[in-house]
Amino acid sequence: MDHNSVTDAERIAKATQTRFGEAISAPPGVPGTNELRRMLEHSSHRQWNTQPIDPALLRLLFACALSAPSKSDLQQADIIHVADRAKIKAIADHIPDMPWINNAPVFLVFCGNNRRIRQIGEWRGKPFVNEHLDHFMNAAVDAGIVLANFIRAAEAAGLGTVPISAVRNHPRETSNVLGLPDAVFPVAGLCVGYPLEAGHITARLPLDVTVHTDRFDESKLRENIDAYDQRRHKLFPLRKQRHPKLYPDVPFYGWSEDKARHYSVPERADFGAFIREKKFSLK
Amino acid sequence: MDHNSVTDAERIAKATQTRFGEAISAPPGVPGTNELRRMLEHSSHRQWNTQPIDPALLRLLFACALSAPSKSDLQQADIIHVADRAKIKAIADHIPDMPWINNAPVFLVFCGNNRRIRQIGEWRGKPFVNEHLDHFMNAAVDAGIVLANFIRAAEAAGLGTVPISAVRNHPRETSNVLGLPDAVFPVAGLCVGYPLEAGHITARLPLDVTVHTDRFDESKLRENIDAYDQRRHKLFPLRKQRHPKLYPDVPFYGWSEDKARHYSVPERADFGAFIREKKFSLK
Repeated sequence: MDHNSVTDAERIAKATQTRFGEAISAPPGVPGTNELRRMLEHSSHRQWNTQPIDPALLRLLFACALSAPSKSDLQQADIIHVADRAKIKAIADHIPDMPWINNAPVFLVFCGNNRRIRQIGEWRGKPFVNEHLDHFMNAAVDAGIVLANFIRAAEAAGLGTVPISAVRNHPRETSNVLGLPDAVFPVAGLCVGYPLEAGHITARLPLDVTVHTDRFDESKLRENIDAYDQRRHKLFPLRKQRHPKLYPDVPFYGWSEDKARHYSVPERADFGAFIREKKFSLK
Repeated sequence: MDHNSVTDAERIAKATQTRFGEAISAPPGVPGTNELRRMLEHSSHRQWNTQPIDPALLRLLFACALSAPSKSDLQQADIIHVADRAKIKAIADHIPDMPWINNAPVFLVFCGNNRRIRQIGEWRGKPFVNEHLDHFMNAAVDAGIVLANFIRAAEAAGLGTVPISAVRNHPRETSNVLGLPDAVFPVAGLCVGYPLEAGHITARLPLDVTVHTDRFDESKLRENIDAYDQRRHKLFPLRKQRHPKLYPDVPFYGWSEDKARHYSVPERADFGAFIREKKFSLK
């Protein structure tokens, strides 16, 4: 089927069916269906063609990303554009299972920045008394929001991306390469380029699991996850069983088995120590 | 000037000038300029007309939001749709300076959820060994990303929004009203409705402050912030000086003075204790 001949409405119904196992229609007359359709068809990309990204476009995408809402207008997210290939390599060398980092035409690191507000307090002669968990979380969430907006802007402009939270696997090394001072910390990297091929839609938990009305509800969670494992497996089976030295192969290997194995081994156990070194008490 | 007669390119140049003090052009031939323009023109809304939101549209927006990337595909963000007006009031009563919460046609709370992965580990017979800061942050950031995507989807469909991080001012009360169990925590609320009037573009720090190449650079930060205070004041002066009992009125009251005063008084100092009660060690 030629994609251009299919209306946004039809593609929205198809994308929601694949993503959530539930065909959702855009009500008639709703504007912006082209954008909604693109969000629903979102996919990550790890291979790019050789077309370079116009620096003027990149600057526009930074502007789009940083137009996102910011907690109390504090503007605690920064973007590091890692243009120097040697610096990209220095970061990527610590993440050998993700060769797409080195191959990405553009590589960015989105950071939380609690530093500016501390400096501003000094310059304006005010004490800074908010060095605690909420403040740290605000900067991390601000960075996530700016990252999400960047991804939307990039996809609108025909680019593909993949976020790299693994820049936190070796946070001190990432921080040193980018010269991040106290109270500035990496949240995620992002590979950006023109995609080599169309992506595929990853199946997600049904909305009955992740959207609640009035009260958090997990009454049918286990059945829903079992059904999701099955639905997802039919669309896109996981071919490799994780941590084979720890766990015997199982006949049916679904998402929940994979994630349970994933988090049965410590990941970034020293990130808290790194953040404390960056002068956060996390009280 | 009739907005409909102005091209996206012209509106992009104008919006970036207002937002960042720098007119940025979309390079010729870039697709998606309509969406990029809408991101650049983003504004918050706190007043809505009486038009109700079609429940079918809301479900589609949830689907768009939850199509966002998720750290390691763990899907640690949930949305609570607070439909019961009494529950909205119970939350809003703790935030008396934000009457728009009670008036919003739709009110949502975006939550971080580290609970499912713990349950999945139990059900699949695997230990859970990742109860530390990185894991907490992943769920918070996932929720921020889903929130950002929801805002983009809502604006595409003609709606206006304003995020409410103040649901964390009294996190235990918010959590109790929504029945949030251990390892599930509120990140931000969101008011949603059809806007009463056009919003205005908030000026942001120049990209020279928030976007860095290769290395974090704050060499001209102080001058840049002084200039930003002035530029912003000309566009949209702050009329009320914060904490007048603590600080004397100053002749020029800019963004940095306001933010320095804001964070000179403790805000959500007990959020860390709340999160620890929710069974996070934050190691």
